[in-house]
Amino acid sequence: MAGIAVLALGGNALTRQDQRGTMEEQYANALAMARSVRSLIRKGWDIVIVHGNGPQVGNLAIQHEESADLVPALPLFTLGAMTQGALGSLICLALHEVCRQEIPGAVSVVTHVEIDPADPALLAPTKPIGPFFSRSEAASLEARRGWAMTEDSGRGYRRVVPSPRPMVPIEADAISTLAATGYVVVAGGGGGIPVARSGDGAYQGVDAVIDKDFAAERIAHSVGAQALVMVTGVPAVRIDFGTPAERSVAEMTAAEARRHLADGQFPPGSMGPKVWAAVEFVEEPGAAPGRLAAITTPELVYATLDEPAGVIEGPGGTRIVADPVPVPALVP
Amino acid sequence: MAGIAVLALGGNALTRQDQRGTMEEQYANALAMARSVRSLIRKGWDIVIVHGNGPQVGNLAIQHEESADLVPALPLFTLGAMTQGALGSLICLALHEVCRQEIPGAVSVVTHVEIDPADPALLAPTKPIGPFFSRSEAASLEARRGWAMTEDSGRGYRRVVPSPRPMVPIEADAISTLAATGYVVVAGGGGGIPVARSGDGAYQGVDAVIDKDFAAERIAHSVGAQALVMVTGVPAVRIDFGTPAERSVAEMTAAEARRHLADGQFPPGSMGPKVWAAVEFVEEPGAAPGRLAAITTPELVYATLDEPAGVIEGPGGTRIVADPVPVPALVP
Repeated sequence: MAGIAVLALGGNALTRQDQRGTMEEQYANALAMARSVRSLIRKGWDIVIVHGNGPQVGNLAIQHEESADLVPALPLFTLGAMTQGALGSLICLALHEVCRQEIPGAVSVVTHVEIDPADPALLAPTKPIGPFFSRSEAASLEARRGWAMTEDSGRGYRRVVPSPRPMVPIEADAISTLAATGYVVVAGGGGGIPVARSGDGAYQGVDAVIDKDFAAERIAHSVGAQALVMVTGVPAVRIDFGTPAERSVAEMTAAEARRHLADGQFPPGSMGPKVWAAVEFVEEPGAAPGRLAAITTPELVYATLDEPAGVIEGPGGTRIVADPVPVPALVP
Repeated sequence: MAGIAVLALGGNALTRQDQRGTMEEQYANALAMARSVRSLIRKGWDIVIVHGNGPQVGNLAIQHEESADLVPALPLFTLGAMTQGALGSLICLALHEVCRQEIPGAVSVVTHVEIDPADPALLAPTKPIGPFFSRSEAASLEARRGWAMTEDSGRGYRRVVPSPRPMVPIEADAISTLAATGYVVVAGGGGGIPVARSGDGAYQGVDAVIDKDFAAERIAHSVGAQALVMVTGVPAVRIDFGTPAERSVAEMTAAEARRHLADGQFPPGSMGPKVWAAVEFVEEPGAAPGRLAAITTPELVYATLDEPAGVIEGPGGTRIVADPVPVPALVP
């Protein structure tokens, strides 16, 4: 099986949790990711990479705060655009280094994603970003900049921003065109730069952060991808976590995944959106048959995509597939 | 006449000299540029935009300096990549707003430009970037970061970086592919992210700043452009500046331009590189006939490209054309 595979990489894949985010650290992590991509390319997959930007946009936010007296602080959607440039370049250089025998090139497309200006999520900021502040600093920022601030995990106050649902990746045709020529395309970084249509039809930037897994699902659908892989830190989805029945899932249908979601098996901030994005991708009305979603580590992407469940020995990732269509009886 | 026109826009076109660089200022300037682009699109031109990033990368450098104790300061080539994301997004949103009836879209491609690792310019940093420092701060930065610092125009000390000559835009094929589908393509921002091949053939970022006009010339050549326009703050090239004979040039051949360059008519930091880039573009060996370069303001680009010199009344820009090929006599 081949076609376009969209890989959604966490921002933590490039700046790990125990790292500060130097260029050397980020490049070493990007090389590891590129080796994983190479094995997919060799199997015939065309690749689109959607990366997160949590740690990187948090660092930029600190820099903009610290220097606000000297340099105008730019809006959040512009900081997101900056991380698309910086991480897009980093990932393309790593892909050139590792995959240059296999592909004509790698190219990063600055990507905007349209959201609904009436999305209720815009009225209820929930996603914490950037540094921690004291209670008095937080009050000052609320007054001075109109930011929403909230107490976070007992460590101080953080800015919270809305996280609306992505609708349409504006540059989808450009991404498809480039992927069709064999380029690995980096797109939708940080979930894409959120834009909404104003009254006269122009796009305006919105200070929000789109969930990267949901954005990757919209991009995968828009470019006609065959596979969507959420690349993360755990080998497979686990259910009944922390109970004697805890186990990894090798494959589940969309209906099974929906049931686990309804049962509260997955925390909303981490595994939940990944499973939701997978379900939406394989259930998309009008999609070509055989779509496959997967959730796994960089090392296991290859085995998870290209081997039917249970065929390979040892650990594998989780595959999410559409529910089987009942076969009509030949004799009524 | 039509085909691909590459427009090289100064970073000052987006953050004017009397502005601080807020998002509102930059967007208003981008809209003015987009209106100029629209008149070219209506005449049948496909457009590639190369923008400068001087003021913007200077602001980022201040932010990285101010916060270096809290957040790792990233290398200069990464700051350049960030400005490609931020300004690429800004320009694309302005083009969407102004030109959406005329084009399928606008797309910004994160662009790397290969330089020669043996370029002697790498050993002699000359291009000042970023903020001014006191003498003692400058000495500390030289010791701490290995930066080259120089006294600049009596206002203090600034970091100077090498400005090597661009060779190959790495993403040229992607830019051509997108321009051929009617997209306005934003590429090579800030002169491109400079990379050099290491011993094993991989690209590595280089802390340098490529001249945007020279980078635009290489991109124009690589994508088979018919026209290269250096968009700047003055309507036309002037010669014998400051003398009674001072005058604007409506059209000059490459040989005439070379003679003016040799005569020292153009200052090296501003008009000189623009005229050089124009000469190189129209003289490129093997180029299609009829290539045209121009130097003018945003308002006059349209008139300068599409009307032969002298046809329109009032002020116009400067056209640079290839030297006429002698017509062979029909009867020997």
